[in-house]
Amino acid sequence: MIDVGLLSPVSVGHDAGVSDAAVLDALVTAEVALTRAYARVGAAPKSAVAEVASIFGWQDEQSGCRGHGVALGELVAASVAGGNPVIPLVGALRSRVSAGAAVWIHRGATSQDILDTALVLVARDAAAEVARSLAATSRSLAHLARAHRDEVAAARTLTQHAVPTTVGARVAGWLRGVDRARARLDDARAALPVQLGGAAGTAAAFAEHLGSPEAATELIDAYAAELGLAAPDAPWHTERWPITELGDALVQAIDAVGKLATDVATLSRTEIGEVAEGAAGGSSAMPQKQNPAASVLIRSAALRAPQLGATLHLAAALAADERPDGAWHAEWPTLRDLLRLALGAAANAARLAGGLRVDAAAVAGNLATTGGLLVSERLSIALTPLIGAARVRDLVAAAARGDDLGSLLRSLPELEGTDVATLLDPAAYTGLAGTFVDRSVAASPSAPDLAEDSP
Amino acid sequence: MIDVGLLSPVSVGHDAGVSDAAVLDALVTAEVALTRAYARVGAAPKSAVAEVASIFGWQDEQSGCRGHGVALGELVAASVAGGNPVIPLVGALRSRVSAGAAVWIHRGATSQDILDTALVLVARDAAAEVARSLAATSRSLAHLARAHRDEVAAARTLTQHAVPTTVGARVAGWLRGVDRARARLDDARAALPVQLGGAAGTAAAFAEHLGSPEAATELIDAYAAELGLAAPDAPWHTERWPITELGDALVQAIDAVGKLATDVATLSRTEIGEVAEGAAGGSSAMPQKQNPAASVLIRSAALRAPQLGATLHLAAALAADERPDGAWHAEWPTLRDLLRLALGAAANAARLAGGLRVDAAAVAGNLATTGGLLVSERLSIALTPLIGAARVRDLVAAAARGDDLGSLLRSLPELEGTDVATLLDPAAYTGLAGTFVDRSVAASPSAPDLAEDSP
Amino acid sequence: MIDVGLLSPVSVGHDAGVSDAAVLDALVTAEVALTRAYARVGAAPKSAVAEVASIFGWQDEQSGCRGHGVALGELVAASVAGGNPVIPLVGALRSRVSAGAAVWIHRGATSQDILDTALVLVARDAAAEVARSLAATSRSLAHLARAHRDEVAAARTLTQHAVPTTVGARVAGWLRGVDRARARLDDARAALPVQLGGAAGTAAAFAEHLGSPEAATELIDAYAAELGLAAPDAPWHTERWPITELGDALVQAIDAVGKLATDVATLSRTEIGEVAEGAAGGSSAMPQKQNPAASVLIRSAALRAPQLGATLHLAAALAADERPDGAWHAEWPTLRDLLRLALGAAANAARLAGGLRVDAAAVAGNLATTGGLLVSERLSIALTPLIGAARVRDLVAAAARGDDLGSLLRSLPELEGTDVATLLDPAAYTGLAGTFVDRSVAASPSAPDLAEDSP
Amino acid sequence: MIDVGLLSPVSVGHDAGVSDAAVLDALVTAEVALTRAYARVGAAPKSAVAEVASIFGWQDEQSGCRGHGVALGELVAASVAGGNPVIPLVGALRSRVSAGAAVWIHRGATSQDILDTALVLVARDAAAEVARSLAATSRSLAHLARAHRDEVAAARTLTQHAVPTTVGARVAGWLRGVDRARARLDDARAALPVQLGGAAGTAAAFAEHLGSPEAATELIDAYAAELGLAAPDAPWHTERWPITELGDALVQAIDAVGKLATDVATLSRTEIGEVAEGAAGGSSAMPQKQNPAASVLIRSAALRAPQLGATLHLAAALAADERPDGAWHAEWPTLRDLLRLALGAAANAARLAGGLRVDAAAVAGNLATTGGLLVSERLSIALTPLIGAARVRDLVAAAARGDDLGSLLRSLPELEGTDVATLLDPAAYTGLAGTFVDRSVAASPSAPDLAEDSP
Repeated sequence: MIDVGLLSPVSVGHDAGVSDAAVLDALVTAEVALTRAYARVGAAPKSAVAEVASIFGWQDEQSGCRGHGVALGELVAASVAGGNPVIPLVGALRSRVSAGAAVWIHRGATSQDILDTALVLVARDAAAEVARSLAATSRSLAHLARAHRDEVAAARTLTQHAVPTTVGARVAGWLRGVDRARARLDDARAALPVQLGGAAGTAAAFAEHLGSPEAATELIDAYAAELGLAAPDAPWHTERWPITELGDALVQAIDAVGKLATDVATLSRTEIGEVAEGAAGGSSAMPQKQNPAASVLIRSAALRAPQLGATLHLAAALAADERPDGAWHAEWPTLRDLLRLALGAAANAARLAGGLRVDAAAVAGNLATTGGLLVSERLSIALTPLIGAARVRDLVAAAARGDDLGSLLRSLPELEGTDVATLLDPAAYTGLAGTFVDRSVAASPSAPDLAEDSP
Repeated sequence: MIDVGLLSPVSVGHDAGVSDAAVLDALVTAEVALTRAYARVGAAPKSAVAEVASIFGWQDEQSGCRGHGVALGELVAASVAGGNPVIPLVGALRSRVSAGAAVWIHRGATSQDILDTALVLVARDAAAEVARSLAATSRSLAHLARAHRDEVAAARTLTQHAVPTTVGARVAGWLRGVDRARARLDDARAALPVQLGGAAGTAAAFAEHLGSPEAATELIDAYAAELGLAAPDAPWHTERWPITELGDALVQAIDAVGKLATDVATLSRTEIGEVAEGAAGGSSAMPQKQNPAASVLIRSAALRAPQLGATLHLAAALAADERPDGAWHAEWPTLRDLLRLALGAAANAARLAGGLRVDAAAVAGNLATTGGLLVSERLSIALTPLIGAARVRDLVAAAARGDDLGSLLRSLPELEGTDVATLLDPAAYTGLAGTFVDRSVAASPSAPDLAEDSP
Repeated sequence: MIDVGLLSPVSVGHDAGVSDAAVLDALVTAEVALTRAYARVGAAPKSAVAEVASIFGWQDEQSGCRGHGVALGELVAASVAGGNPVIPLVGALRSRVSAGAAVWIHRGATSQDILDTALVLVARDAAAEVARSLAATSRSLAHLARAHRDEVAAARTLTQHAVPTTVGARVAGWLRGVDRARARLDDARAALPVQLGGAAGTAAAFAEHLGSPEAATELIDAYAAELGLAAPDAPWHTERWPITELGDALVQAIDAVGKLATDVATLSRTEIGEVAEGAAGGSSAMPQKQNPAASVLIRSAALRAPQLGATLHLAAALAADERPDGAWHAEWPTLRDLLRLALGAAANAARLAGGLRVDAAAVAGNLATTGGLLVSERLSIALTPLIGAARVRDLVAAAARGDDLGSLLRSLPELEGTDVATLLDPAAYTGLAGTFVDRSVAASPSAPDLAEDSP
Repeated sequence: MIDVGLLSPVSVGHDAGVSDAAVLDALVTAEVALTRAYARVGAAPKSAVAEVASIFGWQDEQSGCRGHGVALGELVAASVAGGNPVIPLVGALRSRVSAGAAVWIHRGATSQDILDTALVLVARDAAAEVARSLAATSRSLAHLARAHRDEVAAARTLTQHAVPTTVGARVAGWLRGVDRARARLDDARAALPVQLGGAAGTAAAFAEHLGSPEAATELIDAYAAELGLAAPDAPWHTERWPITELGDALVQAIDAVGKLATDVATLSRTEIGEVAEGAAGGSSAMPQKQNPAASVLIRSAALRAPQLGATLHLAAALAADERPDGAWHAEWPTLRDLLRLALGAAANAARLAGGLRVDAAAVAGNLATTGGLLVSERLSIALTPLIGAARVRDLVAAAARGDDLGSLLRSLPELEGTDVATLLDPAAYTGLAGTFVDRSVAASPSAPDLAEDSP
């Protein structure tokens, strides 16, 4: 067991829910819930279940067990011999209850039942926290998009100024990405099932203990009910889509905030300066610096997450036999790492979106950088019918060399009567930018939260 | 432009739909559909659209353009300078129609509109083909699961015989994985949107050409209608979830058949021999070999696909600005490669599942390998109350050393009257294996196809 | 067999050497070289070898076979059944020579011998081409670094102006990366071995045909000699470091030019404009744009390559048995894709480095953006002993608010006699920038090429 | 800061060297070494250096600082604001020494100097530990290869029995892989450089403090000398090959032991049983199981490592500017994870190789499974000249149907006088297996260790 954090600033303060201590809580919870399920189907005596629940601190289906007193360090050390921590855990739990209760602990179960279920519990809670951060991010972005709905800005493609857009349209894009990711994450969370299949996914030991296959199916449903998780049609010990679908949703969430952070980092550049993080990172020696620290941390997560997601898929594809020889073990730390990244990236995104400042002067300044050339596409459309494509090209080329585009246009007899200033006004060439903002905000789950602050 | 195939046998014969020729068809289709959309909203004259549609071989919304006569080789060579093939394509198309029609080609669009839409068209058709192969795989597996519902076999965990299961339960696991992947793929396909945002996602040029923002929104809807694709709320030029969600679904499909292939490869081993591919690969010099050739090819795809999916996510997270400086370009070949792998892996899986033979004698032989030890878990459950855990352990240890377990048990006074043969019968210890088969088959979209051949 | 290229502009024009046609040439070469090796050790009659060499167009050890007349399309189609193209190839080759010669074709070999050796041949030649492009890139960068050795520029950390550096120091960094990558690639190329192990790596069939184990070892050496490749200590059929080491070197090469492209893309931004690609990509509708097209393409390769390298490592780690059930097959297309990316990225880098233009005015303009704040680190060092850290902070803060730093400094009594202009001159605070340029150029293999144009 | 371990059994007990505590030691060491370097070049007063060294527990260049008293938890929490732990660390260090000493702490350095150097220190020591484990693995494998040099076994290709090989040849393959990986790792370790470039890689602040560029170059050399690391030609702040080359070597090490573990897992299968881990993992309920626990853990690492290596390459390729906006931060935890995996996988491999048992009876039994068909390749070679290929095929086909191959052969008049038993003896068809063992052992760095136990 080692402590980590120093090298993962993106996650610091956000990842307690996936620590060894949290995993241990979930393991104990998964064991105690099984004992409780035996009682729920009428097999285990109430006294045994009460004893187990009491000693190991059972709270309720959402909170599981707390204060169970199992020593983490010993368990970690003992987990190596058998390749997983459940074998020593069962011994530790049974040693602390009466013989009559001990037989109802881990009864008929296999290590994978408990470990998979515990991972699902940890993942459920962590993913809920990620979803909350995404929701907060969404609310801030929706506000921001509406507030800057019509603030015209230079759009950039392949690093170059292209045509006008609006700050609002840019923010609305981030919003759509975050909202979509949150919806996917909600779906994946809702589908998370308990695992209860016994040694090889047939639930034979449960049926043996309970006297019939029918009772075993009831036990599985009872187990799910105890934990507030989905009851699967069948064990998923070697069909790992619950893990990969969650993993994909977590990566998508990190992608969404990664895009936001990538844009903020770019727009924060000294030469661009259109946005600044509310709490930019400082530098003692270089006080002029306003480092986009949250964006940097989020981007570091975005560069790592996809490869972790890939590992989950590899493990799924290589899940040999009725329990694989390595693939299953590769999932656990990978899923934890992915949850850590998602927790940290989403929390930083919420902070980033909540504090993001737009520098209207810089936006306007950059918009003017290329003169009227930013609307050269519009000029092509408007002028080609009047003066032909060749002369339009010549005009634009002259402007690119430094000539004043307005003067050039005003000198054209074909444009007499045309409002050249409007023709060159970027604000008059933003197309559906406003519409897209409105649609994005309206479609957002954050929309109701915004209603109250409508003008 | 190079030809590939020699080193990708998994895809040979299945990937024509993602060739350059297919991509070119889709690019032309995306252009012609835009012209048609202009007519649909009443802007372009019918004659111009008819000319364009006729010259470039428009068929219908599903088939798009065929026989358009655009020279692929030239286009590929010309695609380098501007970084994508659309710029030279537009020139090639316009040069072949009348001036009156030419103005309606690519009107207001940007390269990304056409390329993204074309990729979506290619992906839609290829993914539909993948889904068909998954459906065929599913049907075969459902048949197989039902046919071998109660055929008892050794379950293996961490490479070792563990407890009994059934061939049917194993196959039902594959079935659930394939069916889930197909459902996900169907969802991702249905969500695929057209792209139509203009130079930077504001659709300004469309509004300019059509005279109003409202008309531009109609154009986007018309474009989607022409191609039978979803109309997005807003452009997704730098919010790339339509690509990553499809990518995730493709990887999940390959995972599902990868698990199947992994098990078949293992079960085909010379020493195990429980299954054989219908058309095993031969070896001229070693005629005793029955190589699981389809499984090998599918597994090669499963080892590659997750990393391609990761690249799509990286590209999404790094989709800077209003068009990114590399991330977008990284998507195209990666998505094509992923589609190729999915097409090949799914087609091989359909072939594999369709021809898979189960060797009942080998299944039974392996089941007997460890003597009654395969039911030692059951013995623990049944005997511990009678003789205590310590004596159960001793018995099992003696059997592991070679003693006959049946004789040992029959000599125990405590077991007088117990049916030792049944106690040791693996077939009496398969728990819910049959139930899981029934549920998996019933839940499968393949179930209706199976009804007719019910007993 | 499909044609690709349209979606991979980074590789267009550079990847003919890894096409199916090139692979087929290498496969035929690998077969013919084996026949020749039998003659070299005195086993095969000269007439048989002459016939084989002549019919299949043997040139020499570097060029191998050309114009062999084997039909590619048929071979691709036939490669599926056995999972690789060698089985049908052997049949095709034997059918075209006399019976006396046919027995010396593929004698004792297995498919893997031929396919691995052919891949090595393709990789050797492609990697040599990559190395040539890296060398050209290196030469251009060395020139550029020297030419701009003392041109002061703003260094940026975490997107913010930090302290001064020089254009030369920045270019020298790119140079070191490229030179290191080239050295690694040269090492990996030099280590590339032939494969000749027979059915399972024991070379038993060769020993059987030749009558002794000793003769088989001679045959392996002769095979290596025929192809100008290294003779391995033992077959590497399931120890795949020759592939992963080459893969790592290719990825490192792409990393190196990826860093170059990343910086060029950033420095080309409209707001920064310090560099421009010699042949920037245009946009018909937006003539003001100077897209850094080569950088974009190189970056697209850099986003893809690492994951391909990862696949090669996975295949190496999972190379089960004496020939694995999928891992080996996963290598072939992955290595080809990686070679394609490296060929394209390196060629584009050579073009990029060769044409890169530095805009001295923009460099100087950006340098001045933050006023003297760019040397605030220096001010801290110089002034703290004189006026204390607190007052330095106040000064810098005032300047950050807009006060003129020079005036503030000149008004300080403690600085009387200090040359404030020099203190604030970025050119006087570039440290070892020049030294690092000199060292980097001197250490470069490109250094001799530069000697002639020394001042 | 969270504790991890429960979900990473492969690393438990081996990864203390990469814990936060170890990283903190290295950070303090990197800081103290810089102060010492200032003294080494004659700039800092001896008293200040002695104070700093004493207070922070400097030992020597190999051990660095121990018992420095910096509070880890506070540092982790404080690392978030600035994005890295060095800023608060410097404050903590300075606060504990005299003002005269404080000025020599972190003098002229940037966070990256200290963090990169600390990571290199951690990596150097961890990689040395990995190398020791590889060396132990190598010794055991060399012994094993020699001990089983001539033990004939069935070779398997594509899961099927192919031809004979030897246990020794198989082990020798593992040995070559491990030895090669160790050599690569040694190279990468030896190349690890200090980082000392200041704010943007120009070392300007060092030159400013020391009064000349020349003195700054001496400082860099002195810094390297203090830490026993290489002195780089120039800073590598954004040319990250020292990190990727180490990463590649670590992945290669894991690949090598991954191949070993993959084979052991397969050969341990219940139906194959040719090898067993010395300390196989047990199962309380299923005592017949001998889980290859070490192999499973190693394989879990092998499935994860390549994707971590890919992330390091991505970070290298995207190392923008003079310090990147995310890529650098993505390296730290990824390199730590990779070191953890390598430490755990290599230690488990040493344990595995040290205890591996070969079951001669199982090897012999499997060898006989297919009867003489295992030498069918040899029969083709030997008999074709005598009876023609068609009759050889018929013979082999008859044997594949169950006929006794020996009887069939002895009944052939053409084979009169031929020693049929020898012809069918797998031991007579192992080719160069013994030679390859001898070469592999002789070429191994482990060879001298073996000399004493030669026969």
